[in-house]
Amino acid sequence: MSTPFDRLGPDLVTTDPEVVASFARDEAALGVQGGAGGAGPLAVVSPRSTADVAAVLAIAHEHRVPVVVRGAGSGLSGAAAAPDGSVVLSTRRLARVLEVDPVERLAVVQPGVVTGDLRAAAADAGLFYPPDPGSVAFSTVGGNVATNAGGMCCVKYGVTGDFVLGLEVVLADGTVARTGRRTAKGVAGYDLTALVVGSEGTLGVITEITVRLLPAPGPARTLVATFPSLGAAGAAVAAVTRAGLDLSMLEVMDRTTLDAVDRLTGMGLGADGTPAAMLLAQGDGGSAAAVLEAMAVLCGDAGAEDVVVADDAVEGEALLEARRQALPALERLGDWILDDVCVPRGRVVDLLEGIERVAAAQALTIGVFGHAGDGNMHPTIVHDAADPASVAAAARAFDAITSLALDLGGTITGEHGVGRLKRDWLARELDPGAMAMSRAVKAALDPRGILNPGCVLEP
Amino acid sequence: MSTPFDRLGPDLVTTDPEVVASFARDEAALGVQGGAGGAGPLAVVSPRSTADVAAVLAIAHEHRVPVVVRGAGSGLSGAAAAPDGSVVLSTRRLARVLEVDPVERLAVVQPGVVTGDLRAAAADAGLFYPPDPGSVAFSTVGGNVATNAGGMCCVKYGVTGDFVLGLEVVLADGTVARTGRRTAKGVAGYDLTALVVGSEGTLGVITEITVRLLPAPGPARTLVATFPSLGAAGAAVAAVTRAGLDLSMLEVMDRTTLDAVDRLTGMGLGADGTPAAMLLAQGDGGSAAAVLEAMAVLCGDAGAEDVVVADDAVEGEALLEARRQALPALERLGDWILDDVCVPRGRVVDLLEGIERVAAAQALTIGVFGHAGDGNMHPTIVHDAADPASVAAAARAFDAITSLALDLGGTITGEHGVGRLKRDWLARELDPGAMAMSRAVKAALDPRGILNPGCVLEP
Repeated sequence: MSTPFDRLGPDLVTTDPEVVASFARDEAALGVQGGAGGAGPLAVVSPRSTADVAAVLAIAHEHRVPVVVRGAGSGLSGAAAAPDGSVVLSTRRLARVLEVDPVERLAVVQPGVVTGDLRAAAADAGLFYPPDPGSVAFSTVGGNVATNAGGMCCVKYGVTGDFVLGLEVVLADGTVARTGRRTAKGVAGYDLTALVVGSEGTLGVITEITVRLLPAPGPARTLVATFPSLGAAGAAVAAVTRAGLDLSMLEVMDRTTLDAVDRLTGMGLGADGTPAAMLLAQGDGGSAAAVLEAMAVLCGDAGAEDVVVADDAVEGEALLEARRQALPALERLGDWILDDVCVPRGRVVDLLEGIERVAAAQALTIGVFGHAGDGNMHPTIVHDAADPASVAAAARAFDAITSLALDLGGTITGEHGVGRLKRDWLARELDPGAMAMSRAVKAALDPRGILNPGCVLEP
Repeated sequence: MSTPFDRLGPDLVTTDPEVVASFARDEAALGVQGGAGGAGPLAVVSPRSTADVAAVLAIAHEHRVPVVVRGAGSGLSGAAAAPDGSVVLSTRRLARVLEVDPVERLAVVQPGVVTGDLRAAAADAGLFYPPDPGSVAFSTVGGNVATNAGGMCCVKYGVTGDFVLGLEVVLADGTVARTGRRTAKGVAGYDLTALVVGSEGTLGVITEITVRLLPAPGPARTLVATFPSLGAAGAAVAAVTRAGLDLSMLEVMDRTTLDAVDRLTGMGLGADGTPAAMLLAQGDGGSAAAVLEAMAVLCGDAGAEDVVVADDAVEGEALLEARRQALPALERLGDWILDDVCVPRGRVVDLLEGIERVAAAQALTIGVFGHAGDGNMHPTIVHDAADPASVAAAARAFDAITSLALDLGGTITGEHGVGRLKRDWLARELDPGAMAMSRAVKAALDPRGILNPGCVLEP
């Protein structure tokens, strides 16, 4: 089949149906991917340069073809679920680390660089790129920027957007724009960089990213504590927060998740009966030992059953392995929908207890793990995708949990993005004024609506 | 004279010419204020509530009257220089701290709250609001947010925008919108908060601000070092940066500034001949002593003449007084234009040496002080405003310095904003694509062009 993109040549454009199909989905659940019966995207284009990207967009603009940008395709919200008749713009060939500058403490990368590779390049220069989404080993910096990805580092270091100094962006009509700066500070004009960060491919295509780097922190130390109740774990988190301890990680897993991890790994987490909750924390730099010592005391005061501070980095990594296996372990239990809600820190226990009620009401297994220090939780709803009744129950559970997060003063998405999965939820979180602002910005920057239509906002 | 705003009543609206004139200017120089012969603004309105602000904007929108929002009027870029025929919207009655939440570590304030008062309210709750522009004692949080103000804290803590979680904004037509969140993380929709931060009253009127707070750091310790050359001071800054020392302040003053401070205060800075440059640094928290000790060694290695670490907070404050007196001291020398450029950290010495050449070429006194750790400098051009030749030389110096910053890979404004003073410079920093994005966003959110027209962008 011929497409308007054919003129870019076969090196850049693929229309092979199997290849195209393999680029049409991401990792989101709940039926946000293109329908099985649809024609799928027209083509996949894999540009080698900013000029190539500009050419793709100029054609798409002229022919009003929807463009879906795709990094690793590891997103969980359907932002890279390409609609029928769209073109998928893959960043896989825009994958070079262009510069690491130790004096200015910044790096410049193309969007297709894997996040872990950027972290490694920074480390080679004695520097530190903190963002560490769970997908750090395979997701791309471009995808992280487009979704403003989080991770375990956020409690101390913030999210991806906090490290983005500037961007090169190709606009809907193919115009190339540079936003931001290379200096530590700068307020020249609107913060177009922040506007594009987290816009999930709906305002422009990111072709270059300048990130700031930090001095490498000292080695991390790790603490693990188990609790007989969610309330006790919550009390420990509150005490740690109140004390202002400078933790570089503060994660939680509930009993369901711990049971699943135990079954997968045989780590013996439930040797004396699985605890109701486990906290995993790290401190880094010179204060790490003192910070974890203070935390151990606070955990004890809050009623922890067991508190272990790792003797060294190897033991710390072993302790962390339980957290890293949380999602893989829950995935083993069946089909899964991973939610991503964030509530005020003081409401995390209310959220966890509410999720227990939802699980009971829907007779489903829901494991919860997440970033306790930020209030950002990932309830994982296990169900049977082949059983319509189970799917319906999972959908009800998803809705109930997302709704509960809003009721608790939280947000529908802490770090995964709105995508297509939560598009219809956005107007439940934002007021009509903010929705109007969002639509006005979208219409101004993408007047023909070709950039990832149906993602974030109604098409 | 009657105005469309009279229906809001005399409690909210003032048309007294003397009062209106006193609200029509800010602290910017270089003729960006309204012409002396013009009619000036129509009126000053001083709303008491968000509803009042919405009413003002609805009227302004209907009658196409320009609206200039004004906090303390302490801005240095002419963003609050109100054109003829505009209405000045003063935030002076929107000045309440609405909430300080120690559990969620956030505060909610109205825009007219003085920044120092927010810092004090946070401190009362054992918390810390870092932003500390030089105007901290009199500028408002709303003005700081509208200009994304910086300060001395930025080297460690970042700028005002880094602390803004959410806003209530009244849009051009009077619609009220809430942006952002109260949670630690959140990616629901575009980052409208960041778009409004730093937009200098051109995209909406901020009526409420939610800021995140930090745990109070430990007491600060202070170091002062003097250097025989700009190059030696620059080498010390580079060494400190390379070592990744966790400084909470890193300021510089040049000889011209030190001489002026000495004359004003009799502090004896130049007792043995005024040094070419002085660095002032602080560390805070548990690592402060170790950090300053390390810095003292690096300063010595770089050729410092004299390095003093304060024994206590009182002595530290005394040392800092020299920096606080920099602008007042330079103001004593004549009329002044304060520039605000930021260059990559590694180019600060190039900038300072270039400014010396500009001062020589124009036969003017130019004192430089600023935030060495960020590369953000404030060259202060002393001249005689009554002498047209001196004014012309000052304007040439201002242009040469701003141009030099761009040539060094820097920005035309590090923290004061574009305002009206640097509006025509914006397109020299941004490329046509970014300018087009900016204009599109402005037109989308303010289709009638009533929000601070002529500020940031051409009217």
